[in-house]
Amino acid sequence: MNEHASGPAAPVTVIGLGSMGQAVAAAFLKGGHPTTIWNRTAAKGRDLVARGAVLAHSPADAVRAGGLVVVCVLDREAAQGILGPVEAELAGRSLTVLTSLSPEEAEEMAQWAAERNISFLGGAIMATPDLIGDPEAASILYAGSHTVLREYRPALELLGATTYLGDSAARASLLETGLLASMYAMFAGFYHGTALVGTDGVTAEEFTALAVPWLKAMTTFLPGQAEIIDAGDYTTDQQSLEFNKGGLDHIIRISEARGIATDVMRPMAALVDRQVERGHGADSVARLVEGIRYPEA
Amino acid sequence: MNEHASGPAAPVTVIGLGSMGQAVAAAFLKGGHPTTIWNRTAAKGRDLVARGAVLAHSPADAVRAGGLVVVCVLDREAAQGILGPVEAELAGRSLTVLTSLSPEEAEEMAQWAAERNISFLGGAIMATPDLIGDPEAASILYAGSHTVLREYRPALELLGATTYLGDSAARASLLETGLLASMYAMFAGFYHGTALVGTDGVTAEEFTALAVPWLKAMTTFLPGQAEIIDAGDYTTDQQSLEFNKGGLDHIIRISEARGIATDVMRPMAALVDRQVERGHGADSVARLVEGIRYPEA
Repeated sequence: MNEHASGPAAPVTVIGLGSMGQAVAAAFLKGGHPTTIWNRTAAKGRDLVARGAVLAHSPADAVRAGGLVVVCVLDREAAQGILGPVEAELAGRSLTVLTSLSPEEAEEMAQWAAERNISFLGGAIMATPDLIGDPEAASILYAGSHTVLREYRPALELLGATTYLGDSAARASLLETGLLASMYAMFAGFYHGTALVGTDGVTAEEFTALAVPWLKAMTTFLPGQAEIIDAGDYTTDQQSLEFNKGGLDHIIRISEARGIATDVMRPMAALVDRQVERGHGADSVARLVEGIRYPEA
Repeated sequence: MNEHASGPAAPVTVIGLGSMGQAVAAAFLKGGHPTTIWNRTAAKGRDLVARGAVLAHSPADAVRAGGLVVVCVLDREAAQGILGPVEAELAGRSLTVLTSLSPEEAEEMAQWAAERNISFLGGAIMATPDLIGDPEAASILYAGSHTVLREYRPALELLGATTYLGDSAARASLLETGLLASMYAMFAGFYHGTALVGTDGVTAEEFTALAVPWLKAMTTFLPGQAEIIDAGDYTTDQQSLEFNKGGLDHIIRISEARGIATDVMRPMAALVDRQVERGHGADSVARLVEGIRYPEA
């Protein structure tokens, strides 16, 4: 260990000082952790050094300084490009990679780490850099070595609300991908609604004032749908596919009549149509998940 | 007026006793309003009569009994089929139609009412019947005659939170359609995410426990996007189209690798691609609303 080890807070290293890496390092510093930083372009660390960070001269130095090594670079290639050459220094240490990886990349990196006696924790930051440090707004998903999480929990909790998803390192990025998918679809629907009401001169601001509480209220239906999906029993006496087919067709007709694109609404309508055609019209709309799971079925 | 007029609460009539009409009538009764009901199948009014409702023998009787006539039938055809023959009785009265209409249908019905000296208020119930009566959960949008809303506000507020959108009767159904579109898109994204994480054995319940707070948190970005859209200035230094293109491509690649359908995610990715191809990659993702507004542009 190094000179930082005498402090009560564990020493940490942050590699990669893009806006997210900078936010992560700043949160560690604010929490009193001795923080070593490294970035290919050293100038990006200037503000952090002014706040007490130690700028390492090389990735190897950076790894040697920290108890926990946190990597925040662009992608897997960038991460491996930095970590590969310092695998000897990493051996016996704890590594968490907060870079966006595919589940398969996270799995491969965990495998690579395991073969080198590196304790690996995959992470997925569900927040923009400005939200880092606010546990109400920033959520970080972890999967992989529970030991790393337990040992460095006080440091990691400085970044945001911490959720552990089990020892399969791929899981953090898989859940991240699922959550981002649901976010993008919600945004697409918001744009569609905004475009639709705009045909009558309603502003996006007016629409949003209704849409935000409405969408929040509609999320309360998701746990009930999840229960149906997990049970795999789609029989229902409400919110049938047939009923929702009417609703979706209504939206598409009105959108077309007003000359806006219906691209965003069509896939869900098509998924509903397919289930109805197969005789499931009386089933719960939650059955759509089956149509996504088995595209050819 | 009739015998009810002596009471402090205005007499109301509810025409159409499907599950929504029954919930509406029940809320009026609970609030102490003398409530007259009519339905093609009288048996549907039995429970309401037991709670104090007066069952009218005909639509004409029902209209004559109420100060406010509330119509809750399946669609415009059903509404016109009942209201057309009693236009003489409706003259000089207040009418609110809570049936799902297209904006154009609402406009035509308002026109029809105006020509017959009927005060018309279009309404759109943003709730399922079980939520009627809970202003935290049920929101009702109104547009058309402000006089009707002012006069009967105490009765209408018994149904749910009341929002008035101006004197264009089409506006309630237009906003309803926009909100439903955003809801459906959010649900579709939730199904996609559920299907995706399910490929690794994550249950819908586990996913939902993360997705509900996540989606609620993501709605906080909508007012900022609305501001950009209303200003029409899409220059930004964050959340660019190019950045989000990467995110969407990542989701589609991972989804494909796991063999699930990507139908739900493709339209947003295609909208992003088109804007990027046109040289707007550095602009805010909010620019997508322009791609929906002008499909050919």
